[in-house]
Amino acid sequence: MSSPSERLRELGLTLPPVAAPVAAYVPAVRTGNLVYTSGQLPFVAGELPGTGKVGDAITLDEAVEQARHATLNALAAAAEQAGGLDAITRVLKLTVFVASSPFFTEQPKVANGASLLLGEIFGAAGDHARSAVGVSALPLDAAVELELLVEVG
Amino acid sequence: MSSPSERLRELGLTLPPVAAPVAAYVPAVRTGNLVYTSGQLPFVAGELPGTGKVGDAITLDEAVEQARHATLNALAAAAEQAGGLDAITRVLKLTVFVASSPFFTEQPKVANGASLLLGEIFGAAGDHARSAVGVSALPLDAAVELELLVEVG
Amino acid sequence: MSSPSERLRELGLTLPPVAAPVAAYVPAVRTGNLVYTSGQLPFVAGELPGTGKVGDAITLDEAVEQARHATLNALAAAAEQAGGLDAITRVLKLTVFVASSPFFTEQPKVANGASLLLGEIFGAAGDHARSAVGVSALPLDAAVELELLVEVG
Repeated sequence: MSSPSERLRELGLTLPPVAAPVAAYVPAVRTGNLVYTSGQLPFVAGELPGTGKVGDAITLDEAVEQARHATLNALAAAAEQAGGLDAITRVLKLTVFVASSPFFTEQPKVANGASLLLGEIFGAAGDHARSAVGVSALPLDAAVELELLVEVG
Repeated sequence: MSSPSERLRELGLTLPPVAAPVAAYVPAVRTGNLVYTSGQLPFVAGELPGTGKVGDAITLDEAVEQARHATLNALAAAAEQAGGLDAITRVLKLTVFVASSPFFTEQPKVANGASLLLGEIFGAAGDHARSAVGVSALPLDAAVELELLVEVG
Repeated sequence: MSSPSERLRELGLTLPPVAAPVAAYVPAVRTGNLVYTSGQLPFVAGELPGTGKVGDAITLDEAVEQARHATLNALAAAAEQAGGLDAITRVLKLTVFVASSPFFTEQPKVANGASLLLGEIFGAAGDHARSAVGVSALPLDAAVELELLVEVG
């Protein structure tokens, strides 16, 4: 059994640096053995790969890719509080907000971008409860925002 | 005092089977004495009773009914992790997402469909914190999606 | 070091009375040392200061002010379960739903109204994880709804 950080490396992925806190909020908090992340946008090296609503300016495939980037950002935030990626013993809950045109109803396919990546990294410990909803607009006109609740050993 | 499962029977209701997991997510997870469900749609025997936005293709009454169905699905998912419906000692938090036309602002009335049913089944142990919001679109064009956080004895 | 209730007084603010429960839900619940609030609207003395979508009928400045009012209502609800404001030892998570026109993407600035107030009242213990999203409609056509998760000593 390889560790989550080994699997991440095998996938050719790295955790990005955690974005600096803005205003009076922080990327993640820990209480007991739970870590809650803030809502994460799909920043890649400080830039959003695309903006707009899914089903309109953003395609399903682009949204899936954004969900993967946002997941890496969420894991980076959680890992910082947990004491490293391998200190995360389980993924409990994923909430995915998809900026959606009223006609776009494939939010689960977008969220699968996040869920499948969590499975690849954590195996069975990545099995999580999930909600995926379509919202009217997201910060900076991002297409995806997601938050994680994880358990720490 | 009758048990939650007795009250469910007295109401003429049964818990539906739990839908099979899709992708790398599961219907509910347990950590300590908490169970988080995934967002539940109002499936009845594998079918959505109606699709579209509330205040547009879906009426308030239809949405209330959908909230009741989604609640039964959420309880089924939670009960499976808890070890049965009667192992749920308290309902803590309900989050209700209502696919809403911009002019529909009676999300609390839709959410009452869920809240009142939880009260009927759990009595005072069903008193929960709740958020109800209107979103632009939901998976499969469902009118209601909701998630539960419950406490296990 | 002044206490949260002293800082609230220094800011010239008071916690409003907690609104009476409606249907089978309550303003906040406690489990272990966590308190979850219901979604709070920006009621001031029982009235919403304005209604409509931000970026349309409601300006950014008005929405920031509404976020502050909703925060006071959330703290009142949490304090009642915690045994007073000063029994809240940490703010863990803030979720802010902003009723948004599809073109309004400054949800973080609206949420800062809540985050900064939490920082003013709790200092470093107010550092929280946060999600801010734009939704299509909120109860009673409110512009802002928010919920808090806090830790009790």
